[in-house]
Order: sequence, then C-alpha cells, then structure tokens
Amino acid sequence: MTKPFIQDLVNDMTLDEKLAQLTQLGPHYWGLDDTVDLTGPFKELNIEPHVMESIGSVLNGIGARNVIGMQAQHLQKSRQKIPLLFMADVIHGYRTILPIPLAMGCSFDLEACEKFAEIAARESAAAGIHVTFSPMTDLVRDPRWGRVMETSGEDPYLNARVAESMVRGYQGTNLKEKGRIAACVKHFAGYGAPEGGREYNTVDMSSGILREYYLPAYQAAVNAGVAMVMAAFNTVDRLPATGNQQLLRGILRGEWGFSGVTIADFNSVNELIPHGAAQDGGEAAENSLAAGLDMEMMSTHYLNHGADLIQQGRLDPAWIDEAVIRVLELKDALGLFENPFKDADPAVDEAAEPCKEHLQAARELGARSVVLLKNDNETLPLKRGMKIGLAGPFAASVRVLGGWAGKERDSAVSLYSGIRQKTAAGDILMAMTGELGSMLEGFFDVEDETEEAYNVLKDCDVILAAVGENQQDTGEGGSKSNLRLSANQEKLIWRLKDTGKRVVTIVFSGRPLELNPILAASDALLQAWFLGTESGNSLADALFGDYNPSGRLSMSFPYTVGQIPVYYNAFQTGRPYDPKYPQVRYVTRYLDCPNDPLFCFGYGLSYSHFTYSGFAVETADRITASIEVENTSDIAGKETVQLYIRDVSASVVRPVKELKGFRQLSLAAHEKQRVSFEITREMLMFYGKDDQLVFEPGEFDIMIGRNSGDHETQRIWIG
Amino acid sequence: MTKPFIQDLVNDMTLDEKLAQLTQLGPHYWGLDDTVDLTGPFKELNIEPHVMESIGSVLNGIGARNVIGMQAQHLQKSRQKIPLLFMADVIHGYRTILPIPLAMGCSFDLEACEKFAEIAARESAAAGIHVTFSPMTDLVRDPRWGRVMETSGEDPYLNARVAESMVRGYQGTNLKEKGRIAACVKHFAGYGAPEGGREYNTVDMSSGILREYYLPAYQAAVNAGVAMVMAAFNTVDRLPATGNQQLLRGILRGEWGFSGVTIADFNSVNELIPHGAAQDGGEAAENSLAAGLDMEMMSTHYLNHGADLIQQGRLDPAWIDEAVIRVLELKDALGLFENPFKDADPAVDEAAEPCKEHLQAARELGARSVVLLKNDNETLPLKRGMKIGLAGPFAASVRVLGGWAGKERDSAVSLYSGIRQKTAAGDILMAMTGELGSMLEGFFDVEDETEEAYNVLKDCDVILAAVGENQQDTGEGGSKSNLRLSANQEKLIWRLKDTGKRVVTIVFSGRPLELNPILAASDALLQAWFLGTESGNSLADALFGDYNPSGRLSMSFPYTVGQIPVYYNAFQTGRPYDPKYPQVRYVTRYLDCPNDPLFCFGYGLSYSHFTYSGFAVETADRITASIEVENTSDIAGKETVQLYIRDVSASVVRPVKELKGFRQLSLAAHEKQRVSFEITREMLMFYGKDDQLVFEPGEFDIMIGRNSGDHETQRIWIG
Repeated sequence: MTKPFIQDLVNDMTLDEKLAQLTQLGPHYWGLDDTVDLTGPFKELNIEPHVMESIGSVLNGIGARNVIGMQAQHLQKSRQKIPLLFMADVIHGYRTILPIPLAMGCSFDLEACEKFAEIAARESAAAGIHVTFSPMTDLVRDPRWGRVMETSGEDPYLNARVAESMVRGYQGTNLKEKGRIAACVKHFAGYGAPEGGREYNTVDMSSGILREYYLPAYQAAVNAGVAMVMAAFNTVDRLPATGNQQLLRGILRGEWGFSGVTIADFNSVNELIPHGAAQDGGEAAENSLAAGLDMEMMSTHYLNHGADLIQQGRLDPAWIDEAVIRVLELKDALGLFENPFKDADPAVDEAAEPCKEHLQAARELGARSVVLLKNDNETLPLKRGMKIGLAGPFAASVRVLGGWAGKERDSAVSLYSGIRQKTAAGDILMAMTGELGSMLEGFFDVEDETEEAYNVLKDCDVILAAVGENQQDTGEGGSKSNLRLSANQEKLIWRLKDTGKRVVTIVFSGRPLELNPILAASDALLQAWFLGTESGNSLADALFGDYNPSGRLSMSFPYTVGQIPVYYNAFQTGRPYDPKYPQVRYVTRYLDCPNDPLFCFGYGLSYSHFTYSGFAVETADRITASIEVENTSDIAGKETVQLYIRDVSASVVRPVKELKGFRQLSLAAHEKQRVSFEITREMLMFYGKDDQLVFEPGEFDIMIGRNSGDHETQRIWIG
Repeated sequence: MTKPFIQDLVNDMTLDEKLAQLTQLGPHYWGLDDTVDLTGPFKELNIEPHVMESIGSVLNGIGARNVIGMQAQHLQKSRQKIPLLFMADVIHGYRTILPIPLAMGCSFDLEACEKFAEIAARESAAAGIHVTFSPMTDLVRDPRWGRVMETSGEDPYLNARVAESMVRGYQGTNLKEKGRIAACVKHFAGYGAPEGGREYNTVDMSSGILREYYLPAYQAAVNAGVAMVMAAFNTVDRLPATGNQQLLRGILRGEWGFSGVTIADFNSVNELIPHGAAQDGGEAAENSLAAGLDMEMMSTHYLNHGADLIQQGRLDPAWIDEAVIRVLELKDALGLFENPFKDADPAVDEAAEPCKEHLQAARELGARSVVLLKNDNETLPLKRGMKIGLAGPFAASVRVLGGWAGKERDSAVSLYSGIRQKTAAGDILMAMTGELGSMLEGFFDVEDETEEAYNVLKDCDVILAAVGENQQDTGEGGSKSNLRLSANQEKLIWRLKDTGKRVVTIVFSGRPLELNPILAASDALLQAWFLGTESGNSLADALFGDYNPSGRLSMSFPYTVGQIPVYYNAFQTGRPYDPKYPQVRYVTRYLDCPNDPLFCFGYGLSYSHFTYSGFAVETADRITASIEVENTSDIAGKETVQLYIRDVSASVVRPVKELKGFRQLSLAAHEKQRVSFEITREMLMFYGKDDQLVFEPGEFDIMIGRNSGDHETQRIWIG
C-alpha cells in the first residue's frame, strides 16, 4: 500500500528524475566546496551538473554539520523537495570503534551483538547517517580472504542469529526513533566464498549449497525487517549478483517477500562490463534493473541509459517506478520528509570526548569477544603485582581498531595502556615493540631481535608476546596467500620461550592465522582480534581475569593454509577418516596434516572449569535434549553450551553436524545447571533435491557439548 | 537392437542370476586357491558360494594363466555358460610401465597418447584383461589432490582430446581385434574437484561450471565410443555420482546417448550409506539401480536386495534387464561368447623380457612428456664428456614408475643408469643419493648433508639435483597439504648452488610441486614426473638433447599452496588485476603473492628458440587466425602453437581465455612456418543460463602464442 503522497511524487516525476532518485554518488559531486571543479568528474560519469538536483542518495557523506549543509542545500534546489538519503559504511561503530564483527561473532552473545549495533546506530545517527551497510553476514570458510573480519563466521545458524540481533540493534522497532538507522544486509549472496580466498574472485557453488549454508543468514536479516539489501560483486551461478534476476527478483523478493530497497555495491553495476556480463553501460543498466536492483552506486548507467532502454522496449517502465517507490518509502520510514536532518546533531557529533557509556560498552564487548585458546598450568589470569614482560609489535600499538574504522579514527587504547591501568609502571618491562608495516606499503616484518632486548625481560614473571598482522592487511582487498605470523614474530616467540619464562601469546588479527608454528612455544594463547577503541582495556580485563574469557571461535583456525577450506559443518563423505587408524590410506585425509582444524568452531577456554554429565534425550510429547553443566572451579564463569544435529541419512547428502542452538550459562563457582533444548521440526528441515525445504523422518544424531569437536551424542529416530 | 541370443539369455535368467551378472568381485572369491577359506568373506558379503557361478565380472584378476584358469572353471559351472568379464586398473601400461597420464597430458601429443593406450592394451590383452579403468579424464585444479597424476590436467579441451586418443588406442575400431581392450572412462563426474584437494571429499559446483569445464572430456570419450563409464565416489549436486539419476540417466544416457555399461567405483554403492545418501544396503541398491548404474563393484547390495526391491515395487524390473543386456552386449562386443579367453596368452604374458618395441616406445613417450621449465645460460643440454655430478634421492632410484604400476613391477631405469648409457662411469660423480621415504610409513626426509658429500662433487662441470616426492605419496589417497620439497631437499639444492657449479634440478613428482623456493638456486629446471620403466633413458635423452624437450604444462604450477586453485581458464572478474599498478588495492589480488602461477598452463621450453610474427585474423568466408613461427636457433625442435579464445561479453560470465586448438610444429634449424587455425562456431559455443549450448554473436579475443600467458591477441566481432 503505497502512501498517496509518495504515489503523487512518482506520478509527478520525469523519467530522468526517477533514474536520479535511483542513483547514489559520493559527496564530492555536490561541490559543497566551491574550489572543487566538478567538470572532470561529471564528464567521467557523463552527467550534467543539474542532475545532482534530483539524485537520491549520498555515499559516505558523513558528519552532522556536513550532512545538514548538504541536505539543506539540496532541498533548496530539489524541484520536488525530496530529501537525500545518507548512507555510510559503519561497520563496527562510528565514533566509538567496537570490536570487528568476526570478534563479535566469537562472543556468541546475541545481546552483545544487538548492543553493538545500537551504539553504532546512535553515534551514526548523530552524524547524520540514515543507513549503514551492515550487517555483513556472508558465510566464510577461507581465512585467506581479508574480509572475514567483517562477518560473524562460518556457521549459517550463528550468522543468522547475529544478523537478526544487529538488525534489531540498528533499526529498533521504528526507524523514526532517535538514534535508529536503517540497516543494509550484505553482500547478497555468497560473497564470502571467493575462489582461493582472493578478493573479488569468482564464486561458484550448487544452488543446494547456496541455500543450505549461504542464504539463511541473509534471509534471517530479511525476516528481522532489514530495510535494505546490498547485491554482491561476485557471480552466483555464473552471473554477477548485481545483475542476477534469479537471485534478486526470484529468491529475495519472490520467495522471501523482501519489499525494501536493493542497492549495488560500489561501482558494481558498471563492473558488469569487465565481468563480461554486459557489453556496455546500457546493457549493464538493463541487466541490473531487470534483475531488480533498485539503486546504482557510484556509477550512472541508470541515468545515462534508462530512457533509451525504455524507449527501445528493453525495460519495463513499471520496474523503475517500483524501485523509486521503494526508495521514497524508505525515506518516509526514516521520517525524512518531516525531518530531513533526522538525528544529525553537531553538538553530539563533534563533542570533544566520546560518550563514556559507549566506551564502557565497547570495553565490555571487547572482553566478551576475545578467545582463550590455550592456558597451560594456569598461566593466565595474570596477577596484580607480577612483573610483566611485554614484547612484540602490538605491545604498545594504538593501531588495533581494525579496518573500516573511519577516517581520523586511528588510535585505540594500546595493550600497554590497558595493562598499565592495572599495574604499576615499574612492573611492566618492554622490549622489541617496533611496529609491523603493511604489505601494500612494502615493509612488513618487525625489527630483528637483539640480545639487549632479551636482557630487558630477564626479570619478569611472565612475558606477553603481542603479535599479529597489520590491520591494513585485513579487510576489503586484504587477501593473503600466507597465514603465518611474519618470520621475525615467530622467531621472537620461540626466543622468548627460550628464556624459560612463561609466554602468553596474544594474537591481533582480522582472521584466523596459522598458529601451529608457535603453539608449543606459548604457555597461553589469546586471540585478541581487533577490538576497537577500548582494545587494551578489554584485553587487560581478560588477561587479569576481571572478565573471565567466554569467547568461542565462530570460525575454524587451520593447522596450515594447505588445509583450507576447513570448517566444522562439512558434508558426510563415503570414506570418513577414523583417527584410530592413522595408517589407513583410502579414506578422506591428507598424508601430512589432520582433517580437523587446529582449533575448531565453538572452541574457547575459560578460567573456570566446566564438566558435562547426564546427557539425556527425551522423546515424549516434545523432543528435548538436556545436559548438566557444572562449574567445578573456584571462579565464576560463562560456558556456551552448544547443540549440534546430524541427519544420518537423507535424500541428499547432509553435513556431519550443524549448530542448531546454544545457550550461554553464567555459573558461580561450583554451581551446577541443567540446560535443555527442544528439538523442533524446523531444526531438522533442509533443502531437498528440488531446492524446497523438507523434513524427512529418519535417524538423527543429537549432540550437546562444549564445541563442535567435543560433545556427547545420541542417535534417535524422529518420524 | 539387442541380438536375439542375448535376449534369449536374459529371458532365461532368474532374477538372482541377473543381479549376479551385474556384480563384480575380486578374484579371491573364486577360491582358485584351495587353501583359502571363503566362509568369512562370503559371510561378510552376505552371499552364498553358489552365487559365484553366475557373477558377471572379476576385478583385477590378472595374468593370462590365472584368467584362463578362472574362465575355464567358471564356464564349467555357469548354467548359461556366460563368460566372465575381466577388468583391471591398467592406468599407465601393464608390463611396460609408461609415463603417468599427467605427464602424457604434458606431451600435448595426441598420437603419443594413442600409442600409450595401444601399448597398454596389447600387453593387458595378453594378460587376459578385457577392460581397463582408463582413461581417467577428470579435470583438476588442485595439486594437493594426489590423483592429479592419473589425469591429463586442467583443461577441458586438452583433456577431451587426450581422452579420445586413449579410447582409440585401447579400443581400436573393433574390440574383438587382437590386442584391443575396452576402455572405461572415469570418474563420472567431477571427481577431480574434491574440496581442499582432500581425497574423497565433497565436490560441489554449479551445473554451469560442471558442464562447461568438467563434463566435456567425459563426453568426448563417449563420442569416441568408449565402452564403459565409471561413476565417481563424490557428490554432484549433493548426491554421490553412484546414485545420481540426473547424472547417469539424465546427462550420460539421455543427453549424450551413451549405450554402454556403467559401473560403480570400488565399493561405492555400499558407500552411499556412510555418505548418508542411503540408510541401508537396500536403499543403496535402489538408489544406484534407479540412477542407472549397471554394475556394482566389490559390494553385493544388488544381489542381496534386488529381489526385495522389485517385490516391494521400489524398482522397475526393466531397469535390471536393460543393465544385464548392456553387460552381455559388452561381452559379445569383445567376442567372449566365441572366445572367452580372448587374447590371454601365457607365452606373451610370461615372456622373460618385455617387448623391445614397447620399451622403445615408452622411452620416446617419456622424453616427450618431460617439461623444461628453466634453462638459463644454456645450462642444458649436457654435453658428452662433461663431468656430471649427480645428487639427491632420485639420482639412482629405480622407484620412479609412478603409482598404479601393478604388483611385481617396482623397478625402472634410474636416472643414473640412463646417463650412464651416454657417458663414461668415471664422468659421473654421485653424492647424497639416499632415498626418500613415504609419508604413510612415517619417514619422509632424506639424509642430512655432509661436507664429504660436497667434496665428491667439487670436480664436476655441472650438478644434477634429482629431487621430488616419494611415488607412494602420489596417486589415490595421496593428498598433501604441503607441496614443497622436503626441507632437506631444498637445503641440498641451495647448498649445491653454493658450490658455484651450475645446478640442474630434476623434479620427480606426480603433481605440480611448489618450486619457487628452489627456483633461484637452479640454473636449469626439468619436470621429470614419473615416466615408468624407461624413466632414466627418457630423461637422459632429454638432458643430452638426443630428444629436444617439447613438453608443455597441462596443469599450472603454483607459487605457493596458499594460491590454490590457480589455473589459466578462470572466469572474468569485475575488478581484474593489472600488474602495471601493483599498489592498487581494490582489485582481485593477494597482498603477498601474484595471481598468476609460477609456471602457467601451456608453458615449456625447448633447446631451440622460436619467434612469433605476423599474427593475422581473417574474416572472409571462414574465420582464420594464423601466425608465423620461426626456429631462430641452430637446433631442430618442436613448438606447440596454442590458440586461445575469450568471449568478451555474454549472457553468463565466461573465462578469461580457453584453449581451442594447438598444433605441434617440428621445425628444422632456422625453419619458418605459418600455422593457421580455423575459428569455428563450435569453438565459440558455451552453456547458457538454462544449461543449453548456445552461440551468441559479439566480440571475441583471438589469441595465438606459446602458452596461456604469452600470446598475441586480436579482438574481432563475430555475428
């Protein structure tokens, strides 16, 4: 039911105005700055300056003052007084930078994920932003891909729950509400599976795998009411998503009933040409509009060719109108027709200090996101009063916000500063803290070790080795073929181990790195990710036990890059490997490497110890599976109890296990609790041969445990 | 048109006899050896001994005397006197072991491939074999997979041509002819694409990619009249090929009109159960028979459940009859009803010496298969009279036949022996020749270097470093996560380089290894593969220039395992990398590694030098592309001129280039020749959105050159 005023606007629009409404450009085209000569850029886009008067949306034109200025000026010129829609890449916080989304996935904490989005929304809204290109909910299995940092991991179920939570956090229940912004889920679909982990490379998979693994999280975002969907750069079934009718009109709108706005990725309409999926700009516009892509981003083929296409009968004009209506409806849903500036507030946006409440929340989110991977002999937590050695390129680095942190935000609380809050300056001994360069800048290893450096550390009780990868070498365009720490960092850790001190390795990275080469040299191992503004404080809380680590891996850590892709929910094979018989050759295996990852999905330690007992599956009225978890330690802690299910046999091959539920338990010292999951029919459904959701009676393995590799199992028949 | 006598046989058969006819078992079930107690094995298969009287086929029951004995005994007991069909894994020769198929692919020599199969057929036929499970024509892109050794490489066009040639070589024009055997193309379909290169792992791809890249070579074998097709272990579209109706009935029989026999892979009907594609043996038989799989191999679910399935109405009895008729027709085509022993000839099979003509041919095939990858400063060819240093685990090894060489055949002509034929014993200096163990046996590196060893080599003119991987670590079940030479071998090569002598590295392997780490230490680099019986002689011929190397890579050699898959005919992307701008981030690339492989498809050097000029594309009546190739050197040699085509823009994304033709030119010193290719419409066709073959007018890039990375290009419009 289109509102009459929107229908009136559309009826009153020229075709060119409609096409402009479907176009998004960067803020520099508005020429706010009189010194900018736009002749060149306009010429490049082949548009006339007056077109700007009817453009629909601005990409990354941020800052409250800026937005207010542009909007006001635009509304003066706009014939129909249609406000601009300001969209931006707010990926993990706007002013208060929050943990990278992969770290948030590892929190396994959906309230935290909602909070994450809420904070980001509040700050972005004050900066005049109406829409963020988040959540990115692409399923990922290849840590070579730099952009794994931006999503929540390898599991469809977890990704779906995180996506829903983030959509709720950004949007609330009413976009007009102060501090809410619209979310745009991305990258629809399958962008997380570029071949070889190489950015922008071909994606290919069967439609069954697409539906079973890759689509559920996007669909969850749609079901949660996400306002927008971004089409991916990559191919799906040999057609770029941007021009893929089956995907956008077929699945997204047809099957899922999505009625919001679809948008291209940066220049992706134009990139149909190098893709070889369009021979020129006209065909690029034709294919994208036919596919159901409402808005073009940073190219102007809709504007330049839309009229011709309609005249030549290559496009249905109704498609244009529908797209325009959706864009105007989003503007209306955000209340822009009443208040075109929405929450833009220079006072808030330009406040000298960031919001204390947000910083505190960022600190907590960070602590919940780190994953304790090893802790031999209770090396951690650190005790106050210890002499702490601090070495490695991330020991004092403030460049640990993670990619997409926005300009002018390049400084976080360092690990040193975080620890310094809890211990005397004299108790911290630093050495070998030279920073790590970025690969694109040519320099990428740290300084060579020196004897003097090790001498500095000889009096400490424990050494923290803060290592990792330069944050610039993660994120978009950050694909790597080698996942090991730099040679000097590996040497450093081993050399530290040789001192005879206990070594705690802390890994700063935007992806699972190959940690096996330094595992034996590390008494404790903490995956620190990039945690944003409060990084060092979050880490210090976790290291000292002020927060008892509760993160669980949402993405497998490989033994070696030669084992990729390695993920927990692989398909059953005809010749499974049985580790009891390592000499058997003709089973699915490598000769030189385990099938399992180094650390599996769902894995993570705590300073508490939890035991599981009394696993029971009941099949009376409803099917329930339950288990008792006891904190046998003297430390209160959080355990994430995980439910996995395997469909033993079906009309198509099914995964060896799939996460179908999890529960975070806060258990006081020596507390015991029974956790129960209802096994619903929905959990057992899958996409059959004809790509329809089906339930098939049969045997199922019900598994509950600590992680995807450590659980109890019971096989039952469900009819 | 079934022959009446075959129809009569089928009409006269009981259902159990029919099911037995569709079953293949190993020779031990026949209990030729009275000391074998078969109660256990029969019990395991759940069959009664009398069933053996009507079984249809024997797996790997080889040796003329053995076959004659089994066949005679069987015909005595068989009620209907239906001869057994003897099938075996003759993968690269039977008695005279020939180069591994991947090496044959690198010959780019289709006559050589036909010869290869002819020799294998002649020797196998004399040993009583009727069918070989060859050619394996699976397209491969992942050298981690051990079984890449068994196929011809990464290209659909080359694989198709090799497959046709081999089918012709095995089968001739009449299977009854002496010395001909039936070929069984495998593994239908897509077995060459296991995820992570891990043997027996899931295969998944879109149907478009399956058709465009993976299916053409199987189809070429079918069009060449191959007698049998083996279904693969792996899933295709989430269903194991063995029970995949769409694949076997739909594509193979329906679309391609294949009327021969389909067979399971080893135990693969049974393996539908662990795959989770069948809940028990009954369902495994049901799914396989319904899919159109004629013969079961090494399991007996057809026998044990077929009758019940028909009685329960779960199977159409006509399917059984059709399968039996196809099996009997194959037996008839081989002439077994007239002469059940066919060419089995103990005199030939057991001759003390292998056939001289075959050995000579093997030597030539080997020389044509090696690929010269580097030859700085004309380090090669070796000159007679030089003092030659010989080091490394393959210097004197006779274990270079390659996998699948059959029992009792474990010794080839070593590199040393080959060189010794061309040079005096005193001119060969050997050191560090300890052999390399196999990974499955736990020991896998060579001896540590010693000073004395290097002293031995100090007087030589050139050093050959013979390195590689143990042949047992290749082939089926030979997947590896690490593709580098063992650490000691890499050290050896660098240490040899340090002597200041010229180093020729010779790599023995069943797959592309990661050679970048030793490339700079090698003045010359020769890919030796595993060449079979005559290995050392073939290599000596190439090293001394008695054969001027002409091999070209049929599979890309990666820089690093972290770059896999890397292959030449990848899809066009929206953000192609331009090596002219290495600092540009947002293009498809790795930060730490090129996109291109170390050595690309089609690459290979010669001792001659060839220049290309006068590239011309004519579009008069027919479209032809031609180029002039000149041998500018004083040495006669062979050049493989390669034609690639790119469809610039189409209704689906297309590869950056595809091999569409090649021509081997033998050019005398300073000879010049123009090579011309007709560009046919067939070359330009592809599978469109609906998986139908289409031609779409438009722009095409026509490329001719030395290899997939070095060619001239012209863009033309073809309507």
